[in-house]
Amino acid sequence: MAGWEIIDGTLATARGFRAAAVAAGLKKAPHALDLALIVSDSAQTTAAGLFTTNRVVAAPVAVSRQNLQQSRGRCRAVLVNAGNANACTGRAGLRAAQAMARATAELLGLSPSQVLVASTGVIGIPLRVNLILGRLRRLKDSLSIENAVAVPGAIMTTDTFPKTCVLRTEIGGRPVHLAGIAKGAGMIHPRLATMLCFITTDVAIAVRELRKMLRAAVAGSFNRITVDGDTSTNDTVLVLASGLSQVRVRSGTRIGARFLAGLSQLCETLARMIVRDGEGAKKLVTIEVSGARRQADAERLARAVANSPLVKTAIAGSDPNWGRIICAAGYSGASFDPSKVDIRVNDLMLCHRGLDAGFDEAAAKRELDQKELTIRLNLHQGKAAARLWTCDLTQDYITINASYRT
Amino acid sequence: MAGWEIIDGTLATARGFRAAAVAAGLKKAPHALDLALIVSDSAQTTAAGLFTTNRVVAAPVAVSRQNLQQSRGRCRAVLVNAGNANACTGRAGLRAAQAMARATAELLGLSPSQVLVASTGVIGIPLRVNLILGRLRRLKDSLSIENAVAVPGAIMTTDTFPKTCVLRTEIGGRPVHLAGIAKGAGMIHPRLATMLCFITTDVAIAVRELRKMLRAAVAGSFNRITVDGDTSTNDTVLVLASGLSQVRVRSGTRIGARFLAGLSQLCETLARMIVRDGEGAKKLVTIEVSGARRQADAERLARAVANSPLVKTAIAGSDPNWGRIICAAGYSGASFDPSKVDIRVNDLMLCHRGLDAGFDEAAAKRELDQKELTIRLNLHQGKAAARLWTCDLTQDYITINASYRT
Repeated sequence: MAGWEIIDGTLATARGFRAAAVAAGLKKAPHALDLALIVSDSAQTTAAGLFTTNRVVAAPVAVSRQNLQQSRGRCRAVLVNAGNANACTGRAGLRAAQAMARATAELLGLSPSQVLVASTGVIGIPLRVNLILGRLRRLKDSLSIENAVAVPGAIMTTDTFPKTCVLRTEIGGRPVHLAGIAKGAGMIHPRLATMLCFITTDVAIAVRELRKMLRAAVAGSFNRITVDGDTSTNDTVLVLASGLSQVRVRSGTRIGARFLAGLSQLCETLARMIVRDGEGAKKLVTIEVSGARRQADAERLARAVANSPLVKTAIAGSDPNWGRIICAAGYSGASFDPSKVDIRVNDLMLCHRGLDAGFDEAAAKRELDQKELTIRLNLHQGKAAARLWTCDLTQDYITINASYRT
Repeated sequence: MAGWEIIDGTLATARGFRAAAVAAGLKKAPHALDLALIVSDSAQTTAAGLFTTNRVVAAPVAVSRQNLQQSRGRCRAVLVNAGNANACTGRAGLRAAQAMARATAELLGLSPSQVLVASTGVIGIPLRVNLILGRLRRLKDSLSIENAVAVPGAIMTTDTFPKTCVLRTEIGGRPVHLAGIAKGAGMIHPRLATMLCFITTDVAIAVRELRKMLRAAVAGSFNRITVDGDTSTNDTVLVLASGLSQVRVRSGTRIGARFLAGLSQLCETLARMIVRDGEGAKKLVTIEVSGARRQADAERLARAVANSPLVKTAIAGSDPNWGRIICAAGYSGASFDPSKVDIRVNDLMLCHRGLDAGFDEAAAKRELDQKELTIRLNLHQGKAAARLWTCDLTQDYITINASYRT
């Protein structure tokens, strides 16, 4: 049984979907694409979504959550804008998000609850929704399979590159696709990163199963990344399944397991792209904790290390400062014996049983100079393990964030 | 009844104490002072200490904690070095810290358990304790009241200015003093900041009472500051009382209340100095939360805002980005209704009932340009309040920390 292969090229959505992007004037840069629409042409489409855990919830998150419920997961379109998060915008913001869904539904001949909406950008500034509504017809008219490639760029904010991944496999002789479009950059934190992600697939799958699989895939990917420890008000991961491959996916079957594996691979690939493109980030850092007594200890410790500004700046400077790593472990709240801890960068041992391993400085610097590197902590106390992705903390993070709004 | 007044000038310790500093060669810069000794000449001296909550505990912390216990709070000397934290240095590190206490005790005619030790600097590098032991006699010979002024500079690491505060009052016609010497800079976090602080006073007070008052004063000062959310392995706050003022302090009395007020004022003053001198910090920021339903909510919310890198970079850039503040509140875990929240910078309202207050951008920038400013959140849901001190996050933080060790 073949696995999923990555397809390079122009595809950005799976079969059964069309998409497009236009410039609505929400971004500061003139003529920048900032409004995108993804539509399924299949009446059997199923959808599922996961949203921010922040208590302050943006209007589009509230509306999309409600529409998924009201339509019982039969959503067929996603309208997304960049340049304004439509968060902390009160009743006017809610009305704007609802208007986005309603107007899109009208144009497409759907019910309003079949349209999902998402926004990203600055918080607390009223959304000029008329700019969006005025561009909807043009957006609808340019919907096509090919124009989906414009979507990843249109939803970028401080991202430096567009993020897509398309996977393909064959099941029972039939080609099956999984396609993801994501944006990230700042406010990235494990409890749903600050991010938007729109996944399309051509399998046929029941809403409840799709929801379950999305939750599992996100737990191992988007919920395991951190850029700056801030959880956004707008985080959204949506998946739409058109069914056009005529391959039916059920959990508890071999096909179900294969689909979940693909969905997980897609989410992990996009999650790593988001971290690699963390604001100001130059390095993608994997934190691997092993040998913990309990799973909760491994998780807590990995998160403390991944979030420590001192660890992240040391990595930026290629400084093998393992003392900061064990220090972060120490205040993480995890239970462990410091005198048993080994710390490695990639395969090079920096700290052995809690003490300096007498490593070669130049060799350590070479490991830390790599664009992708792994910090490994072995607690030698049990069998629990955890893995997280983070990035280094550079001066560019400060530059980007000191004047994002003004 | 007069309050405590700040005495400017050359004093750095209270009556009954002598101190000095020498260069032992532990700091990179040649001839930099890096070893200091504070000694009480009074046999009735009482002492108390508070230490880091980090599970990874530096050797001097372990030794000082033990010595306070063994001597039942009758410690009379503090030996402190900068340039090496003597943390994650294993048994050799413990032996080094014990040797520091033993050699100092011998020279001063004390028992080893009457000597406290403290270290600050890089983690995980063996301490060259012979450099310290070789300078002890010279250090002892230069002990004087005046030479105490050299101590604040000698214990600095990335600090940019020495931190001392001396308070004076009269009780029953007798002058009473409280003097504090502190260092801070990086790894500053509420659960005992990364910091050393040595307080001397000339009141007479029982060990148990001194411990209780120190805990209360620290809870309202050093435990309420944050620079980068990292809790160090070496945090130490010590207080020694010589009794030479002949004023006896007991808790539950008016004199006890006055002493605690002075001790609290001293700790708050030094705590604010530490934040103002946070690595790369240009601004001292007070976070004030009011109107919370429960104390725990107020605390949690204040800490999330004070620790958010996005809030701290926005303050660095004088960007009135209140959306990030309410966003941090939202993920803090505190219970509140976002649509009731007011956010002010100093007295200028940025966000009213969860929405943009329509403030004047130029006026907001003027408030944020100040060297000391207050972010006020009123939740309008109850009467609980909390206050924390933090600083802005600038490019200099990155520069300082990217190459601290190498």
